[in-house]
Amino acid sequence: MGATVPFSDLDHRYMARALQLARKGLYTTDPNPRVGCVIVQQLPGQPGQIVGEGYHVRAGEPHAEINALNAAGEHARGATAYVTLEPCSHTGRTGPCAVALQNARIARVVVAMVDPNPQVSGNGIKVLRAAGIEVGVGLLEQDARALNPGFIARMEHQRPFVRLKMAMSLDGRTAMGSGESQWITGPEARSHVQRLRARSSAILSGVESIIMDDSRLTLRVEQLQLANADTVVLRQPLRIIVDTRLRLPLATACLTEPGRTLIMTTPAHSPEKRTKLIAAGAEVHVFEPGSDGRLPLKELLQWLAENEQVNELLVETGATLAGALLDAQLVDELQLFVAPTLLGGEAKPLFALPGLSRMADQRRLTIHDMRAVGRDWRIIASPQPD
Amino acid sequence: MGATVPFSDLDHRYMARALQLARKGLYTTDPNPRVGCVIVQQLPGQPGQIVGEGYHVRAGEPHAEINALNAAGEHARGATAYVTLEPCSHTGRTGPCAVALQNARIARVVVAMVDPNPQVSGNGIKVLRAAGIEVGVGLLEQDARALNPGFIARMEHQRPFVRLKMAMSLDGRTAMGSGESQWITGPEARSHVQRLRARSSAILSGVESIIMDDSRLTLRVEQLQLANADTVVLRQPLRIIVDTRLRLPLATACLTEPGRTLIMTTPAHSPEKRTKLIAAGAEVHVFEPGSDGRLPLKELLQWLAENEQVNELLVETGATLAGALLDAQLVDELQLFVAPTLLGGEAKPLFALPGLSRMADQRRLTIHDMRAVGRDWRIIASPQPD
Repeated sequence: MGATVPFSDLDHRYMARALQLARKGLYTTDPNPRVGCVIVQQLPGQPGQIVGEGYHVRAGEPHAEINALNAAGEHARGATAYVTLEPCSHTGRTGPCAVALQNARIARVVVAMVDPNPQVSGNGIKVLRAAGIEVGVGLLEQDARALNPGFIARMEHQRPFVRLKMAMSLDGRTAMGSGESQWITGPEARSHVQRLRARSSAILSGVESIIMDDSRLTLRVEQLQLANADTVVLRQPLRIIVDTRLRLPLATACLTEPGRTLIMTTPAHSPEKRTKLIAAGAEVHVFEPGSDGRLPLKELLQWLAENEQVNELLVETGATLAGALLDAQLVDELQLFVAPTLLGGEAKPLFALPGLSRMADQRRLTIHDMRAVGRDWRIIASPQPD
Repeated sequence: MGATVPFSDLDHRYMARALQLARKGLYTTDPNPRVGCVIVQQLPGQPGQIVGEGYHVRAGEPHAEINALNAAGEHARGATAYVTLEPCSHTGRTGPCAVALQNARIARVVVAMVDPNPQVSGNGIKVLRAAGIEVGVGLLEQDARALNPGFIARMEHQRPFVRLKMAMSLDGRTAMGSGESQWITGPEARSHVQRLRARSSAILSGVESIIMDDSRLTLRVEQLQLANADTVVLRQPLRIIVDTRLRLPLATACLTEPGRTLIMTTPAHSPEKRTKLIAAGAEVHVFEPGSDGRLPLKELLQWLAENEQVNELLVETGATLAGALLDAQLVDELQLFVAPTLLGGEAKPLFALPGLSRMADQRRLTIHDMRAVGRDWRIIASPQPD
């Protein structure tokens, strides 16, 4: 992206503020990325002054830069704009942001990260530089990337960022051997899970878990514990159910909830059941099974990225599908909610990893965070590549 | 213990120092308690000055008070003594400490906790008060009790403090289903376990674990990571093996290690095997089995407290014995070392809790601490009483 521009302490401070603004869109921008922008007027011999701030709120509404420019008005002239993502160069609903910055007579633009879409990456910066605007790239880039893991995975790798959430006892169990199950974690952990759902484009579950628990997989205002919960729930994440043999009961609770339910299946099922499920409110998509007769999980994820613009995918399911995703190395992040209880050796395991019989085959993880969440604990980890 | 004496900020500071001194004996005082003492001279209008410090190092050597008085010499006259445990009133190897404090003309004694032995509790304080010495009791009592959980359990309840240590994968597994096992935790966790052994009077294991792993259950200088490791290893904790049917192989490694190995068994075994095990270096003790044919665990613990002065008992064993101890509510503390790895649903469980089949029967824990230990994590928890 051209010569490296050194960044000052003030540059860091303003970009940190832009990142903070971007986070305000965490639960609403999907499928767009979360982006924040700060416009700073630096008069000679004086401390800088923020003259405009903005963030992207929702797809179809203005980009962060436009909101910040509108707030700054005339004060944008000669100012520096800090943006957490490279300004777009394509004609959007509000025109390309790179052109808007130019029209507002912005003198300098600092960008945390380039656009992760390889087809347009660098174009916005090119437009700005062609207009004589000084551009610095890469300030607090890691933080900017951490804001949009799903959008970046979709743009760079044509698949969602897959976050696997599980609730377990301290001895690694999810339910009793009989199948008897209930919330083993407390209300704070459930609120955390609600917010994980809210930031996700879609929630993936296996038909077995749905049959067992009849979970609704929806956002609930009262559990989100967010100031903007009322607007957040307007976008219910897609519900994706992996159901190879189309066994989902027609009376499944989530089919009548607000939002869409997609059933992913193979041709091995009766056409009548399909018709009935569609009548009950589901959408049904058919995949050719893999050589093991199962739904091809990698293809499924690619399909979700391509056809449904799924950025972050939250997996809430049982040991079999969770184990299969881990086995296929399709999990980017694990969030384990650990209840301070023991369910014993007869209870249901966290992961089925059927191929795993030697210590040499163990799946190593990196633990990033372990902290108390109410009376429970949350562990964030990621699988280590083989 | 008489009227409550208010404690000043300085009192708190000096008792905290006495507790710090007591901790220096953590790995050496067994079966005696860890005790520290600080003697402070407070001249009118001046800040207090520590004139003597001491702690109990090893059974048979002087008590903390005597060491501190020796350090203070003539400066003890008119001073305040801070002691983490009530001074003894019985004639020990160095005479009763209460009398020594009196002879040194100590003016005031502050005691963190009374002697937990109900037969002598309060006697030392009585002797001091009878000599006209001002006595304050109960300063930082919880911290003082935390120093000696085993000694206190043995004195108050005639049983050891039982600490169950387990190493597990993040999905609650201890070894592969095949029985294949190896250290799943890293060197830092192993050093932690060595120090848990070093503070314990004895280590308890089941014969099955010994057969599987042939663990030596000893302290090793190079793994302890203690400045005084050379002297700590001079006292090897007792090794206690629960072996109902006397199946322990004669070639078991720990039998030839320094220190004693006690095999706890029932009459259901051949006299020849017993003779051979004794010849191989073991001591064998016979218990009448319970109605389930197993060794009675509660009796075993009482026996260890009464006959071997076992304060802290570290349990290092497999799922069956660990589950039985939990089931019998004989575990005071759990220390789980969690390796960042997954072993899968076919691997060996942490606890066999065979009676546990309904969610209502789950064993609830209180988690006290969760922290990184090298690349692993350590969880300290305690079972909640039913």
